[in-house]
Amino acid sequence: MAIKLGPNQYGKAGVRLVTVTRAGDVHHLKDLTVSTALRGDLAKTHLTGDNSDVVATDTQKNTVYAFAKESPVGEIEDFGLRLARHFVGRFGQITGARVTIDEHAWDRITVGGRPHDHAFSRSSEEKRTTVVTVENDRAWVVSGLRDLVVLKSTGSEFHGFPRDEYTTLAETDDRILATAVTAQWRYQGSAIDWRKSFAEIRRILLETFATKHSLSLQQTLYAMGEAVLEARGEVAEIRLSMPNKHHLVVDLSPFGLTNDNEVFHATDRPYGLIEGTVLRDDAEDPGPAWQ
Amino acid sequence: MAIKLGPNQYGKAGVRLVTVTRAGDVHHLKDLTVSTALRGDLAKTHLTGDNSDVVATDTQKNTVYAFAKESPVGEIEDFGLRLARHFVGRFGQITGARVTIDEHAWDRITVGGRPHDHAFSRSSEEKRTTVVTVENDRAWVVSGLRDLVVLKSTGSEFHGFPRDEYTTLAETDDRILATAVTAQWRYQGSAIDWRKSFAEIRRILLETFATKHSLSLQQTLYAMGEAVLEARGEVAEIRLSMPNKHHLVVDLSPFGLTNDNEVFHATDRPYGLIEGTVLRDDAEDPGPAWQ
Amino acid sequence: MAIKLGPNQYGKAGVRLVTVTRAGDVHHLKDLTVSTALRGDLAKTHLTGDNSDVVATDTQKNTVYAFAKESPVGEIEDFGLRLARHFVGRFGQITGARVTIDEHAWDRITVGGRPHDHAFSRSSEEKRTTVVTVENDRAWVVSGLRDLVVLKSTGSEFHGFPRDEYTTLAETDDRILATAVTAQWRYQGSAIDWRKSFAEIRRILLETFATKHSLSLQQTLYAMGEAVLEARGEVAEIRLSMPNKHHLVVDLSPFGLTNDNEVFHATDRPYGLIEGTVLRDDAEDPGPAWQ
Amino acid sequence: MAIKLGPNQYGKAGVRLVTVTRAGDVHHLKDLTVSTALRGDLAKTHLTGDNSDVVATDTQKNTVYAFAKESPVGEIEDFGLRLARHFVGRFGQITGARVTIDEHAWDRITVGGRPHDHAFSRSSEEKRTTVVTVENDRAWVVSGLRDLVVLKSTGSEFHGFPRDEYTTLAETDDRILATAVTAQWRYQGSAIDWRKSFAEIRRILLETFATKHSLSLQQTLYAMGEAVLEARGEVAEIRLSMPNKHHLVVDLSPFGLTNDNEVFHATDRPYGLIEGTVLRDDAEDPGPAWQ
Repeated sequence: MAIKLGPNQYGKAGVRLVTVTRAGDVHHLKDLTVSTALRGDLAKTHLTGDNSDVVATDTQKNTVYAFAKESPVGEIEDFGLRLARHFVGRFGQITGARVTIDEHAWDRITVGGRPHDHAFSRSSEEKRTTVVTVENDRAWVVSGLRDLVVLKSTGSEFHGFPRDEYTTLAETDDRILATAVTAQWRYQGSAIDWRKSFAEIRRILLETFATKHSLSLQQTLYAMGEAVLEARGEVAEIRLSMPNKHHLVVDLSPFGLTNDNEVFHATDRPYGLIEGTVLRDDAEDPGPAWQ
Repeated sequence: MAIKLGPNQYGKAGVRLVTVTRAGDVHHLKDLTVSTALRGDLAKTHLTGDNSDVVATDTQKNTVYAFAKESPVGEIEDFGLRLARHFVGRFGQITGARVTIDEHAWDRITVGGRPHDHAFSRSSEEKRTTVVTVENDRAWVVSGLRDLVVLKSTGSEFHGFPRDEYTTLAETDDRILATAVTAQWRYQGSAIDWRKSFAEIRRILLETFATKHSLSLQQTLYAMGEAVLEARGEVAEIRLSMPNKHHLVVDLSPFGLTNDNEVFHATDRPYGLIEGTVLRDDAEDPGPAWQ
Repeated sequence: MAIKLGPNQYGKAGVRLVTVTRAGDVHHLKDLTVSTALRGDLAKTHLTGDNSDVVATDTQKNTVYAFAKESPVGEIEDFGLRLARHFVGRFGQITGARVTIDEHAWDRITVGGRPHDHAFSRSSEEKRTTVVTVENDRAWVVSGLRDLVVLKSTGSEFHGFPRDEYTTLAETDDRILATAVTAQWRYQGSAIDWRKSFAEIRRILLETFATKHSLSLQQTLYAMGEAVLEARGEVAEIRLSMPNKHHLVVDLSPFGLTNDNEVFHATDRPYGLIEGTVLRDDAEDPGPAWQ
Repeated sequence: MAIKLGPNQYGKAGVRLVTVTRAGDVHHLKDLTVSTALRGDLAKTHLTGDNSDVVATDTQKNTVYAFAKESPVGEIEDFGLRLARHFVGRFGQITGARVTIDEHAWDRITVGGRPHDHAFSRSSEEKRTTVVTVENDRAWVVSGLRDLVVLKSTGSEFHGFPRDEYTTLAETDDRILATAVTAQWRYQGSAIDWRKSFAEIRRILLETFATKHSLSLQQTLYAMGEAVLEARGEVAEIRLSMPNKHHLVVDLSPFGLTNDNEVFHATDRPYGLIEGTVLRDDAEDPGPAWQ
């Protein structure tokens, strides 16, 4: 029996990068949280503390900031690819890199009915995300969104589930359905218009959530994924994680009141958690995209 | 020397209330976090555990839910007043009540270019707030907003500050100014249109932040408060708390790059914290409004 | 009618200071979060952006770090007093200063049964706190603790409360009582041994919580405060804020099981919130200590 | 091309379970957060909303509470195994179950020098964790700990790393090394004493962190894992995730002061993130243990 080093990676997490670009008087803002992770032949530092292969995480952070100046950041997928390819191309011992980026949205403040040139307010806490993986000369892009909190006040039922001795839940043909969508989709093919693809996928997710009459959150989840795949050929696979944020009808009968789905107690914990994948039969092999 | 009970209050905090009202097929959503606190002659329970004066916090919670059914919630100020007056009017030993409400905003999901009847997505983390205080037959209303995160990418300077042996900060005539506004304003007078007043004050705060050329965050804060008071006679006083969320220009010179206010490191801690009050000379006495 | 500047202050918040002092091979760790706030004649910057009176918050931060080197930090109350007096004494326009400090606790890691010289693990999230206020040549010290989470699995009852049409809570003569204590006590007199006083007050709070048979959380709160005042003459007043973290007995009867206070659902929200002050008849005037 | 359902699971997350067991007057407390996730043939609900295979997440929650009454919870691994095997054994369509448990630690309050019978205070935020996976008639147990925050004030160097045009980090032969350890280890074999194994592994992790002279956080990580595997034959593999919580030496030279590793600025973001696996050559196949 011997003990050995298994899979490992290291990098810098939580690099808060804000850039301002100017088109005349009009400023454009980019607000990102970037994390980098490098993989490769890193046994020496683990076994002996010899750091001759360890590109310092401080260097990784500096590289993020320098790259943001050297050319426009652009879409997060492109920025991630540039960074990941740099690390893999530059250092022989680094054979893989993963760059994870969250983009924080800002709106322009409206002044006198018009969007201001250089003043912004933070939009919702929803994030646009990407995870770019480069291994030698191949690349995988998994983009997504997180914390898209949505709620339907009707159009959701839940019944027909099995009952055993631990089942007390009543069946319902009308309930609030609320969740915070985390979606990640794996791209295939090339020459993808990242911005447009994101906007369309987000629109499809929202519209499907709104319009699909729901018999279970699983059915809603699958419909959302399916609609994305039907409309967007550049998506090989989509993974959705959707907590069921329970809104309980408050029992007002002790007070002589009826409650016809009008007054709810929004609970924090526990919550349901529904996770699923929708993919194409002929999707490309994911390689290390999800690891 | 004797030991005695001083000021005290008790109540239920964090009551999560969601209501749905229906105008035909169109649903309206109200999402509130309500806290109640009662004051009065509560010495018995403190000194002996005799609870004959203690309106249970569970009863307070039930009252919030029942009131939400008995008549439409309406504006948070009105709902707070109804609740606070109920507690003070109903129980002789309860001479004061404070109701604190945060309102969480939702937007309608757009489907096919039109707002959906009953599907919503969470807006920003900004909250509309109110703190209603009732004491015997008087009432005070302090409303506000919280977590309104704003940023200007130019139009902000900071210089002319005193230098001592611990001063290293460089003067600047162009910096990012970012903050998360917490504002609370105290109303005076009656027959206030709470919704309109809130909307106008919020608009004024945002527009002033955007357009006021800033020589210090203090100056911006005062200008924001002054603009509210000039425009809104129903406001006696406004208190603003504005963290200075520092965005540091990254030093790219080691990499042979200039950084002309293009690439920033957004820091979490430490942060500046600027707090100030703007009020009318002849403002009514605040009484217990802020206690 | 005129608009004017009211009370205001500004400073640096969230300065994370860690110091290491060495007694031979044995290292001692101090881990603080320091916030400073200055008050005085600051109208110019608010009204015109003239910063000639504004000691930069960056300078305040530098002063914290420099003072930590110039002499040992010592007890947080002493460090706060040194800092606050410096700001008030050094700058004519600064007539008041408030320094707020949280101390984060670390234990030594045990190796081979003995405490290690220079390796530590984080203790609980409980913080030791102080708020030091200096105004001209006077000083006030309010110390305390926060996030001291405690629970009794018996020895707590709650009954005899009034019942109205919104009351559904059952009376109980045995419940879990759990809370997260926030305590702040105001010192009076001089030559106080801060460390010993803190340790004794903390011990008294814990012992009283444990041993006082509770008929209401208010009774427990008062007893805790009273015990501190009886034992510690240096304390003029103590304020306690204690959320009632409800642990609900799970109804297992649908499953044919009894639940004799054995299985609980620990809830997050809503929670009760009990706040009270215990003070001496002849306590010194608090001045600005709590403002 | 066809679209299909890929891997999926669903369950209840965040079930807060507290149990009290009594040995005469002495009470024992167990404080757990339990999440369950079921897997199997769940296509119907996804594709058509037919819920006849969907064991409601509410039922899963009820089962957790009922099982906590039916027999003593015991070690979290045993409780997880009982729950997971129940779900898989009871419902034909459920072929796999994962139960994830965090255990929150409490200490007894000391009164008069002795541990109290039924009063407790919360220990550190560190959690003992387990993830139990059952698939048909096989089971895997991955246990661990989270948020074990540790710091060494010396005994850590970092130098010899490659320098490129983006490297500015200075080499150091003495720095603070601080991290929050997340460890997960996969058990093999049977008849494991979960409690003792956990205690020993935790002790080894702490002692190795404290005593291993560190040339890189990677070296420390590997040494910690290796020490566990050397001492504990029941562990097949251990995975460690260790953020490098940077403590920066404050530059006091502008103030005419030296800083010989005495005064540090503890930063939040960005942070290094070091992740690695240490395993046996002949470790059993992990199956779905980590998925």
